[in-house]
Amino acid sequence: MVEGRSRVLIESVNPSVEQGRFPAKRIIGDIVEVEAVIFTDGHDQLRCEVHFRHESATDWSVSALTASFNDRWYGGFPVDRLGRYYFRIRAWTDPFGSWLYGITRKIEAGQDVALDLRGGAALLDERASHAGSDAQRIRLAAGALRSLSADGAGLDQVLGEDVLDLVAEHDPAEFASLSGAELEIVVEPERARHGAWYEFFPRSTGSGGSPGTFKTAASMLEHVAGLGFDVVYLPPIHPVGTTNRKGPNNALVAKPGDPGSPWAIGSPAGGHRSVNPDLGTLADFKAFVARARELGLDVAIDIAFQCSPDHPLITEHPEWFRHRADGSIAFAENPPKKYEDVVPFDFESADWRGLWDELCGTFLFWASHGITTFRVDNPHTKPFPFWEWLIPEVKRQYPEAIFLAEAFTRPALLHGLAKRGFSQSYNYFPWRNTRSEIETYLTELTSLPGREYLRPSLWTNTPDILTEYLQSGGRPAFMARFLLAATLGANYGVYGPPFELCEAAPRDPGTEEYLDSEKYQVREWDLDSPWSLKHLMQRVNAIRRGHAALRQDWNLAFLPSDNNQVLCYAKFTTDRADIVVITVNIDPHFRHGGHVELDLELFGFDAAESYVAEDLLGGGRYIWEGPRNYVELDPGTAHIFVMRQHPRTERDFENFQ
Amino acid sequence: MVEGRSRVLIESVNPSVEQGRFPAKRIIGDIVEVEAVIFTDGHDQLRCEVHFRHESATDWSVSALTASFNDRWYGGFPVDRLGRYYFRIRAWTDPFGSWLYGITRKIEAGQDVALDLRGGAALLDERASHAGSDAQRIRLAAGALRSLSADGAGLDQVLGEDVLDLVAEHDPAEFASLSGAELEIVVEPERARHGAWYEFFPRSTGSGGSPGTFKTAASMLEHVAGLGFDVVYLPPIHPVGTTNRKGPNNALVAKPGDPGSPWAIGSPAGGHRSVNPDLGTLADFKAFVARARELGLDVAIDIAFQCSPDHPLITEHPEWFRHRADGSIAFAENPPKKYEDVVPFDFESADWRGLWDELCGTFLFWASHGITTFRVDNPHTKPFPFWEWLIPEVKRQYPEAIFLAEAFTRPALLHGLAKRGFSQSYNYFPWRNTRSEIETYLTELTSLPGREYLRPSLWTNTPDILTEYLQSGGRPAFMARFLLAATLGANYGVYGPPFELCEAAPRDPGTEEYLDSEKYQVREWDLDSPWSLKHLMQRVNAIRRGHAALRQDWNLAFLPSDNNQVLCYAKFTTDRADIVVITVNIDPHFRHGGHVELDLELFGFDAAESYVAEDLLGGGRYIWEGPRNYVELDPGTAHIFVMRQHPRTERDFENFQ
Repeated sequence: MVEGRSRVLIESVNPSVEQGRFPAKRIIGDIVEVEAVIFTDGHDQLRCEVHFRHESATDWSVSALTASFNDRWYGGFPVDRLGRYYFRIRAWTDPFGSWLYGITRKIEAGQDVALDLRGGAALLDERASHAGSDAQRIRLAAGALRSLSADGAGLDQVLGEDVLDLVAEHDPAEFASLSGAELEIVVEPERARHGAWYEFFPRSTGSGGSPGTFKTAASMLEHVAGLGFDVVYLPPIHPVGTTNRKGPNNALVAKPGDPGSPWAIGSPAGGHRSVNPDLGTLADFKAFVARARELGLDVAIDIAFQCSPDHPLITEHPEWFRHRADGSIAFAENPPKKYEDVVPFDFESADWRGLWDELCGTFLFWASHGITTFRVDNPHTKPFPFWEWLIPEVKRQYPEAIFLAEAFTRPALLHGLAKRGFSQSYNYFPWRNTRSEIETYLTELTSLPGREYLRPSLWTNTPDILTEYLQSGGRPAFMARFLLAATLGANYGVYGPPFELCEAAPRDPGTEEYLDSEKYQVREWDLDSPWSLKHLMQRVNAIRRGHAALRQDWNLAFLPSDNNQVLCYAKFTTDRADIVVITVNIDPHFRHGGHVELDLELFGFDAAESYVAEDLLGGGRYIWEGPRNYVELDPGTAHIFVMRQHPRTERDFENFQ
Repeated sequence: MVEGRSRVLIESVNPSVEQGRFPAKRIIGDIVEVEAVIFTDGHDQLRCEVHFRHESATDWSVSALTASFNDRWYGGFPVDRLGRYYFRIRAWTDPFGSWLYGITRKIEAGQDVALDLRGGAALLDERASHAGSDAQRIRLAAGALRSLSADGAGLDQVLGEDVLDLVAEHDPAEFASLSGAELEIVVEPERARHGAWYEFFPRSTGSGGSPGTFKTAASMLEHVAGLGFDVVYLPPIHPVGTTNRKGPNNALVAKPGDPGSPWAIGSPAGGHRSVNPDLGTLADFKAFVARARELGLDVAIDIAFQCSPDHPLITEHPEWFRHRADGSIAFAENPPKKYEDVVPFDFESADWRGLWDELCGTFLFWASHGITTFRVDNPHTKPFPFWEWLIPEVKRQYPEAIFLAEAFTRPALLHGLAKRGFSQSYNYFPWRNTRSEIETYLTELTSLPGREYLRPSLWTNTPDILTEYLQSGGRPAFMARFLLAATLGANYGVYGPPFELCEAAPRDPGTEEYLDSEKYQVREWDLDSPWSLKHLMQRVNAIRRGHAALRQDWNLAFLPSDNNQVLCYAKFTTDRADIVVITVNIDPHFRHGGHVELDLELFGFDAAESYVAEDLLGGGRYIWEGPRNYVELDPGTAHIFVMRQHPRTERDFENFQ
């Protein structure tokens, strides 16, 4: 049976994901804000604290919680190391605090407190028995209490701050309650929270008909750094299979010289731990990564756990694959669709454990070569328990590792992967185009409880996704989607060259596949085209770097507008030191104007005073008054206002009456 | 390490309260509707089932779940016994089902399935090895598969329903996943879900100046039964202390003959297991209870765990009480307020275990005398772990026991008690008087997740609560609050005689105390007064008995009205066999009219056809069309419409165009 005198209840501890089943996520340097509902029967005073430790520490650190309205208690602790932190809440009734609260009320009411003083003195004597070398000072206070008169005059003097501190310090916390399971926080590097990603195919960085290599790709790095991006992401860099290789536009039979899909991984030249010899050597790749680092860019590689029929593992470990009734290897399929250049791993293999180790080793191999940012292809077609094991396993050695989940699938799976450790998640943003779609979905993404574990990465396009909106809206459609992705999302990405150049032609009407997609052929891009969005990208990425409000996801508020094509929203830091208001014309075809309604209270502005809206994009600077203001925008354009209100100074009042 | 091939995830299982930390509540005869989010990686077909058992059973029963949108699965199980049920979900991938799904798509697409047929036959052979005496029939089907042609023609014949049933029956459910902890359901008697309660003081049933007794109270039972109530609730029936006894209107000193507060429990005549000799003997009380039962009434008694200074336990078990520095007993107080006729138990007593047993014994004592409905006074001033232990302990012997928590306190405590087993809860209804207050609060009370464990009991008034609204609104205020309580709440109650007679005078302006409260003195009530609400009570209770929609809390919808004084809401059974729409004028002073907007889709009505609204209260019967209709009501009156739409018959179409 339990200790029936542990009377304090601790509920609704946050941050937590499914009562501790999964960790919440933070980045290094954060203060984790902790809250809980803590109460007991009756009127006793409580003391509550959070105990926390980094996984490498054995001792707990302690920080006090403070009470707020309706039994809510708040506090926090810093997370200044990568890895896992654990925390729990401890709370107990404080007999001395309850006594002090009571006698103070009685003294105020003019009651006789002679007996209460004796009771308090007894509590102090009891406390002194736990107080070691401080016992004498506490006993002195007990004696002084006994000598006070029945009206309690002088209580404040007897119980000065020094005595109260001692009494608190030696609180035996009798019958203390602990919150249930220890809760976990995974602390990741800052780049997990915000970053601008740019995807390109190294083989498309050549010129004059020669395919690109890691060497030619290095000059592309300068372009991308110049646009202000933070992360360069490369599709799989491994050897490409030849069996059933696909030709341009997904042709079932490749012609000689066709390079094949980088996602058909493995050839006699190697598998997931090798580089495609057409791109260069491992040394070339490392030089490419070193150049990126010089330019301030992180390099992310694509980890796609599937094999071409020529992958060395297929002969080395046939037990990790499924075979058909005739003994042939089973290709990937989603009946009636077949993917004959790709073979999936069999995660129900009797040697699943060996397979897991092999795949984990792939991440560790690349991490040992300096790559710790991974875009994971189709993680939802591999077992969820596998990821739940693998990600912490990699992070044990490389706590700086970042995993981006490419799971364009049903919500339970998308969320399930994020809970199991993926740092960031692709999501449905590409298909949220109207005002209500965007407002509803982004509100969902940035609200509790999902935001504790799922960090959205907003992509305008991918090699698989050229949306109807982009196909039909011309250059303004690309501008609008870029502006939305880069200002709604702390993390966003573009599949670079085709996006930058507003490439809009689909392979077939009604599909989202690119015509002449880089997935199956080498392209050359004219990055100096007058159609390019490079100046817009440059400017917006620079604004992101200058504004902390745009580098976090949690503080987002959509604001009313009387024109559904004029989207208006605010992002702000919690302390309101940085407030950015964005208005975008999401109609790629027509100019639109409308009144937007700013939330001055949310901004902490004095509604009676004017304020300045400075357009960081267009350069205009407006003095506004009141919440309602008019904006008018060309197709696909936006204002990115930084909002400021200065307190009035004497100079502002120089007019006499 | 886990079994890595258990690839099915089971999440968000409902009903559950805090992931199984507390049980959900149902009544006997319910079907528990179960839902869960269940998914795996990739495209495999799943099989999912719920396992459930009554606490007295050792074997699990099984019922299949069926899939719905977005990985949600639904099913249910019946609870036909009082007590606790346990359930959990089991799910696994179904290789044969996945194979069948795939080959069917391929045959539809005209693909060669020769190898697939061989693969399926191998799966059947494997299944046959688990099939005992059915093995031969499954092997025959395998052989038949092997003999089909490459286009798969005839697959349907080979895999008829009989074969598929056998295959499913012998599914080894390899690598099956189980949902986490077993979830619990507490099954209570029907009266836990709905009932109309009437509170009265037996001592106020006398006449001509003689105080009432259990004998005179028996004639009051006929009155209450005649009004259509279900439960009679009596304030504490135990001996009343004399030390520091309170006089009329809470006077600090009682005069000789003053009866004292029934909540100051205990005298030389006994404590919590005795009856007040002024009311009669235990035999008299049991005769009273028997009479109530004859009239179809349940009797609820008040259990108030506190003592008068004269309670026998104070001398028998001084260790269960707190003493002051001079050795005197510590009275109840909430500084600077003192309650000198009452002594609290000390739940931090070293012998807390003995105290718990004593108090639990009190419930068991009364249960052994036929009382299993308990109104518990101030449960929030006793430890929550105590209740969490006590309620199941009582229900182990008396699973029909019902506990109503009187905790007019902060939300965390109100909810905390309900989670720990109280069947019903007093709540903030008395202070929710305006339209938005009522709509917001009742929506909260009837929504997830709280409704799984907290059953609200809506009280119009109590001996402690004569609200401002009742004090100031005259008879129409009493009518409106009665109508609201009885039609919004499946459970509701009135502190009877003063409510019935519209007694509205407070002891002091600004308080909610009754003048000349029965708490401190004997009253006589003229139940034949022309002011009485008895006809309204009779009619509304009869309507409740005739309409299942009013005897449940979960299906409540507030409907728009263009006049804030005209509240409009619908209650309905899940199958829509009973739909009741209530409109109440909540302004006790003026007549109001307004248009209300019915939700015909919610009712399952054909919006193009007319329907009938029959006023069960006023008798009117209206043929309405469309959602918008006009109502007009005198102060404090209501319509209680039952809504019906009959399908058109041939007769309705007798006019030839």
